[in-house]
Amino acid sequence: MALTGVLRPGHCQLRVLDLKEAEHFYTHVMGLKPMGHDPSGRAYFKCLDERDHASLVLRQADRAGVDFCGLKVLDTATLHRLESDVRAFGLPTERIPAGELLETGERVRFEAPTGHLIELYAHKTTVGDELGLRNPEAIVDGRKGISPVRLDHWQLHGRNVEGSRDLFCNVLGFRVVERALKEDGVSDMGVWMSCSNKAHDIAFVHDERDGSLHHASFLLPTWEQVLHAADVMTIHRTAIDIGPIRHGITRGTTIYAFDPSGNRFETFCGGYDHYPDMEPIVWDWEDLGRGIFYHTRQLNERFLTVVT
Amino acid sequence: MALTGVLRPGHCQLRVLDLKEAEHFYTHVMGLKPMGHDPSGRAYFKCLDERDHASLVLRQADRAGVDFCGLKVLDTATLHRLESDVRAFGLPTERIPAGELLETGERVRFEAPTGHLIELYAHKTTVGDELGLRNPEAIVDGRKGISPVRLDHWQLHGRNVEGSRDLFCNVLGFRVVERALKEDGVSDMGVWMSCSNKAHDIAFVHDERDGSLHHASFLLPTWEQVLHAADVMTIHRTAIDIGPIRHGITRGTTIYAFDPSGNRFETFCGGYDHYPDMEPIVWDWEDLGRGIFYHTRQLNERFLTVVT
Amino acid sequence: MALTGVLRPGHCQLRVLDLKEAEHFYTHVMGLKPMGHDPSGRAYFKCLDERDHASLVLRQADRAGVDFCGLKVLDTATLHRLESDVRAFGLPTERIPAGELLETGERVRFEAPTGHLIELYAHKTTVGDELGLRNPEAIVDGRKGISPVRLDHWQLHGRNVEGSRDLFCNVLGFRVVERALKEDGVSDMGVWMSCSNKAHDIAFVHDERDGSLHHASFLLPTWEQVLHAADVMTIHRTAIDIGPIRHGITRGTTIYAFDPSGNRFETFCGGYDHYPDMEPIVWDWEDLGRGIFYHTRQLNERFLTVVT
Amino acid sequence: MALTGVLRPGHCQLRVLDLKEAEHFYTHVMGLKPMGHDPSGRAYFKCLDERDHASLVLRQADRAGVDFCGLKVLDTATLHRLESDVRAFGLPTERIPAGELLETGERVRFEAPTGHLIELYAHKTTVGDELGLRNPEAIVDGRKGISPVRLDHWQLHGRNVEGSRDLFCNVLGFRVVERALKEDGVSDMGVWMSCSNKAHDIAFVHDERDGSLHHASFLLPTWEQVLHAADVMTIHRTAIDIGPIRHGITRGTTIYAFDPSGNRFETFCGGYDHYPDMEPIVWDWEDLGRGIFYHTRQLNERFLTVVT
Repeated sequence: MALTGVLRPGHCQLRVLDLKEAEHFYTHVMGLKPMGHDPSGRAYFKCLDERDHASLVLRQADRAGVDFCGLKVLDTATLHRLESDVRAFGLPTERIPAGELLETGERVRFEAPTGHLIELYAHKTTVGDELGLRNPEAIVDGRKGISPVRLDHWQLHGRNVEGSRDLFCNVLGFRVVERALKEDGVSDMGVWMSCSNKAHDIAFVHDERDGSLHHASFLLPTWEQVLHAADVMTIHRTAIDIGPIRHGITRGTTIYAFDPSGNRFETFCGGYDHYPDMEPIVWDWEDLGRGIFYHTRQLNERFLTVVT
Repeated sequence: MALTGVLRPGHCQLRVLDLKEAEHFYTHVMGLKPMGHDPSGRAYFKCLDERDHASLVLRQADRAGVDFCGLKVLDTATLHRLESDVRAFGLPTERIPAGELLETGERVRFEAPTGHLIELYAHKTTVGDELGLRNPEAIVDGRKGISPVRLDHWQLHGRNVEGSRDLFCNVLGFRVVERALKEDGVSDMGVWMSCSNKAHDIAFVHDERDGSLHHASFLLPTWEQVLHAADVMTIHRTAIDIGPIRHGITRGTTIYAFDPSGNRFETFCGGYDHYPDMEPIVWDWEDLGRGIFYHTRQLNERFLTVVT
Repeated sequence: MALTGVLRPGHCQLRVLDLKEAEHFYTHVMGLKPMGHDPSGRAYFKCLDERDHASLVLRQADRAGVDFCGLKVLDTATLHRLESDVRAFGLPTERIPAGELLETGERVRFEAPTGHLIELYAHKTTVGDELGLRNPEAIVDGRKGISPVRLDHWQLHGRNVEGSRDLFCNVLGFRVVERALKEDGVSDMGVWMSCSNKAHDIAFVHDERDGSLHHASFLLPTWEQVLHAADVMTIHRTAIDIGPIRHGITRGTTIYAFDPSGNRFETFCGGYDHYPDMEPIVWDWEDLGRGIFYHTRQLNERFLTVVT
Repeated sequence: MALTGVLRPGHCQLRVLDLKEAEHFYTHVMGLKPMGHDPSGRAYFKCLDERDHASLVLRQADRAGVDFCGLKVLDTATLHRLESDVRAFGLPTERIPAGELLETGERVRFEAPTGHLIELYAHKTTVGDELGLRNPEAIVDGRKGISPVRLDHWQLHGRNVEGSRDLFCNVLGFRVVERALKEDGVSDMGVWMSCSNKAHDIAFVHDERDGSLHHASFLLPTWEQVLHAADVMTIHRTAIDIGPIRHGITRGTTIYAFDPSGNRFETFCGGYDHYPDMEPIVWDWEDLGRGIFYHTRQLNERFLTVVT
């Protein structure tokens, strides 16, 4: 089997300060499909081109941020094998019973060295996209809102970037696609990693605030749709951080913006295809501004200060 | 390791009727980078965003078509494991010594049930793309010709589609992404298969002419570049088969056209991302026209008659 | 005043075989805004970015085609001056009283030498676009259907192309932007003319069938929207004649397709800007195929045979 | 004649601090075509899709900025009529003899109330675009640099905006397309005016520095080309002011950046079509940020402080 192990970022649970407001935002501005609530009141959403039940879960809380990031793995055997491997790496793991998240099987949870709760799961109910599996049409006409293709990746911040890098590379089968070096020219300020052909499935960047979320990223199909996303954000007066702009890292085009609770999200397009026989691209400290924001060629103040 | 086994379509050798003319075409119209000749006179080319030495090899011959299609695998161990697996599947294999193709390691070759020579290899010299690995720019300005991103996939025709499907799925780790059914509603007229996150890495379609090539496909980054490709083809009076148009199968946008020897090639963009937990999409016979050519909704005569 | 005289194609009245079916098509597939019916039962539509009341009028009839094409002129003085000029050119004119078309002022009508009823008018009620005139947003989100920007131009067929050309150039202030020559290399097979900066506002092409309509054209903003239009047509199984493709003439991108009554329409994008100091571009007979369909480089059979 | 009087922004002369450096920039970064030098050493350039000899003239000077902006008019009779009209408006005019600018006829020059030298001319040698007038191709392949379609418009700053507005509207035949109001809600902070179907051919914005240049604008055909322009600017380390972004005013997409002498230029795409029967769009002071920069919804500091 050519694609195995961890398949993709599958779901994440975000904390929001006002659930009603957040549901309105993710439905009408982001253009996700609401997939109902669970008994604890959490709200579920999926992107219209995803086939699994939900990729975004919102939980009302006093503080914004991410509760956990879930990676879908190939099957139950993989789940149990990776559970052992994570333990062997030295991290305690916890099993969350099937059904704790709607339509989701048993999850194996652990805390990455950067302080983020990561979980693995092998099963989530397939509900299908809007197009179907038999003689489908190619598009859904008249989509409203940003309407991303899928949850794409997360950028997570914490102190022990090397630790999380090693966990993801040596245990979970990710590969480093791009690296940004600290001023010392040796150690990793940030790493962008892939478990697939994508330019990145997860990124870790150095930050004193362990367990913090820089952004959750949603995929758009074209640069014209990135423009449309920016227009939709303005119509709804969504706070834009930066963009439309290109990243040097991954070459993708992007907008960073904030949900009503202050969680940064990204609407991302492009990025080259990655294969495991490709050497990582390396960014020196002096070029990092251009690496992150290819056109301004400098970090804006918010990039390194605002996380949730 | 999340991505393992067979990585991607890595190279193919096409037969051309006039090597000089073909070299001119692939250099100036297709916009590939010439990578030299070997002692036997074969001409090598790479796409500008590929890092390996070459993805296209041209050989002068009396008849157009494809000599062999090469799949790059993760490493030597994988190569030898897959060699055994192919033999266990019942196919004889042959080892082609390293260096027989320029800058390419040992290859393991076998004939697929549809009559095509397929080969696996683990090593090809990395020459890099035009951007480099340290603080790269995001684009190369002023590219001339169609200038595709990479070799993307092949569509191969022959009688025993099920046989090649089983070889690729059961032995080489591919997965069926989309299927087109024959009039009987049961057996496969064609299968589109992936060894990665791509919508397809290879396709087999039923045809009485074993070992024949329907097209080799080259990736373009945007629909605007598909238009540009069509414009470039017209400037050079390249024979266009069909397009710009969308496929229903994979949802990709495309042009089919012919090189000066009559080998069909595709300039392809898009296609959704595939994961191994996704059920195949199925096309019924009555909808196949729309599956292949989403806008005309019917096969043109050439689709099923012209192969090389 | 820099832009004066005839301003633009303002409205046209098409004959349809089944009004209900046509209304459904122009509302849900073309994505126009229904603007009501008049006492005689005619249905009115406008494009969403047009400010005047309506640009398309549908009339139930036994035979498809165009009843008349209306050009908006600057003001009443211009209307009356052009009325005299048309009479001086030798054509009888008729005044249609204000209100005969909903929200439309007095019209001056005459028959062009190619047998088409052309009318001029100076007033039509401004109803505005969806964005408004005070601190507007830049887009309307969630448009469904093809949703063109505006009515763009018509291509009309008849025998006396030179006559209509002279009427439009010498009397109505149009300029020839591009010409296609007959096999004799001298006389006009077709002329593309502009009264503005657009690459064309009207075209006349030689045809034995006087008074016939080749197509009414609707403007799209981008090549990606042309693709979307083709996708929408397929979803609704609209008969596509050709495209997405580029014209050599005007360089615009296009789809030709048919409404349910068989009236050909175009969804058009691009075309260079025209100025009155620019010499016409000339197409020789041998290159006309490429002039019309830049990528196929040949006329399809329907181009010269199917009109309404 | 439907389009008459002033046709378009035809040329402008910019002052640059280092002519060699500026020539390199406008040739290799902007991608204009060098059209030679005149005896006084000025350097001439044209956009590749323009047919007249040159649209940009560079003059070495101690201070950056614009020497004059030239408007092409329909013919000599128009030139002389407008000369009288400008005098009747109360402005002295000067005739610059034919040939003072290369390949350019007699010019009539006057100073607009905002302190800018404006000139009219009826003749400039047609040199043609790269495509030709007989059976042309649709594109030029392999263009390098930003490679704009044409000089599009200027934004000029000075105190007497109303005066320049009246000159352009009442004498030169322009129409106000959009207005931005001062805090008083009555008087014009800025006016965007058109002499054609374009969303603007010139803009005047209030500023204490009479005769100053905010930017000269160059047209790009697509939003993807706007991205390409930003990429090219980064490759060459051109100072970007803002963008890629959308304007609320005109809805166009844009980048503002600076040439090596500090002259701001714009690479602009889109903008709706204007007709003289359209009421101006009005922007209130509170919404001006969104009017100028639709996505950030606020003026950056440079917008109102940096001019040349």
